[in-house]
Amino acid sequence: AIVVYRLPWTWKCSKLLMKFIHAGLNTIAMILAIVSMVAVFEFHNAKNIPNMYSLHSWIGLTAVIFYSLQLFLGFAVFLLPFAPVHLRIALMPIHVYSGLTIFATVIATALMGITEKLIFALKNPAYSASPPEATLVNCLGLLLVIFGSLILWMASRPHWKRPPAENAKILRPIAATPEGTEVESTMTNSSNADKSDLRSNTEAARKQNIKFDEAGQRSTM
Amino acid sequence: AIVVYRLPWTWKCSKLLMKFIHAGLNTIAMILAIVSMVAVFEFHNAKNIPNMYSLHSWIGLTAVIFYSLQLFLGFAVFLLPFAPVHLRIALMPIHVYSGLTIFATVIATALMGITEKLIFALKNPAYSASPPEATLVNCLGLLLVIFGSLILWMASRPHWKRPPAENAKILRPIAATPEGTEVESTMTNSSNADKSDLRSNTEAARKQNIKFDEAGQRSTM
Repeated sequence: AIVVYRLPWTWKCSKLLMKFIHAGLNTIAMILAIVSMVAVFEFHNAKNIPNMYSLHSWIGLTAVIFYSLQLFLGFAVFLLPFAPVHLRIALMPIHVYSGLTIFATVIATALMGITEKLIFALKNPAYSASPPEATLVNCLGLLLVIFGSLILWMASRPHWKRPPAENAKILRPIAATPEGTEVESTMTNSSNADKSDLRSNTEAARKQNIKFDEAGQRSTM
Repeated sequence: AIVVYRLPWTWKCSKLLMKFIHAGLNTIAMILAIVSMVAVFEFHNAKNIPNMYSLHSWIGLTAVIFYSLQLFLGFAVFLLPFAPVHLRIALMPIHVYSGLTIFATVIATALMGITEKLIFALKNPAYSASPPEATLVNCLGLLLVIFGSLILWMASRPHWKRPPAENAKILRPIAATPEGTEVESTMTNSSNADKSDLRSNTEAARKQNIKFDEAGQRSTM
């Protein structure tokens, strides 16, 4: 869901379709998170294990609460056509930052959960004796860190954002129809920033240094 | 160390002094990391606890190895005056990304370490009985997450970067002296990108929308 806007095949989709993919995948993830939370509480209750005592559970619940807030605000501000453009411009950096921070926090929570589970589940031989299960699950934990790092890399590369030409193509018909207040008009964001940005990007491309162009931070709204 | 370039009081320092503060703080952190690793191994050996069996230790050691690499490459490329400008331009986004990723990984490692320690150290009453120590240390873990989030917020705000006027002031004398190959010449980075960037930033300021200016991603080299 995080890297939908970074995948070249989605650049051919309309902005609205990309938003639906982003929102849809995140909704599926939220449903799965709720299902797994219910499973955890029922498992604890069935086994007479206290709920919500560990740091893993505290940080995990905090992350899920922030994630649902993020999802709700994302729907209300960026998907529904009611929010004014200046609100979208003001909230987009916060939306991107909190999305990535929640993602990193969820990975940290998973690593704490793995650590707990290995300590509690491996008894004979214990975790400290490094049985094959311990090594396998440690490797899965390392892969989780590598996965998280790759996603954060993809999400933070300015030149992996949608090319500005795509924005321009969509912006033109809206500029021609001033009454364009339907959902697709969500792309009229930050026209000033976008224009100056387009210019600096075209220049950068001309000078063959787009690869090094840290200035190309385009809004993905 | 991460946010040195984001603190307004450092904007008055020369670029070189800022680099020395950044490198110096990171060197101190590296020394502390090595001291604590030695302490851990000696503690394990004294108590006959196996070394390097847990996910915490695997990810922690990986982070320390990458951190020392980061420090070595940072010294060699950005502090010493030998690296050519195009290499600095190419490596800076990687340096920034790996710095932040290592920082996030270290926080995740600390959270795993806290989880382990609480499980192993609290026996009577156990961690699952939520004694006051458990609640206190859980709160410390939450504060660690909040601290990490704040640092990542500060480090990722484009308008918290050094104002471009500062760069321009330093750039001018170098442009005047083509033989400026001493350490301070490290600021001649990406002159193309910087110029177009400066322009778009001045425009943005004029249009009173610098606050929303996601285009202002200036290289901090």
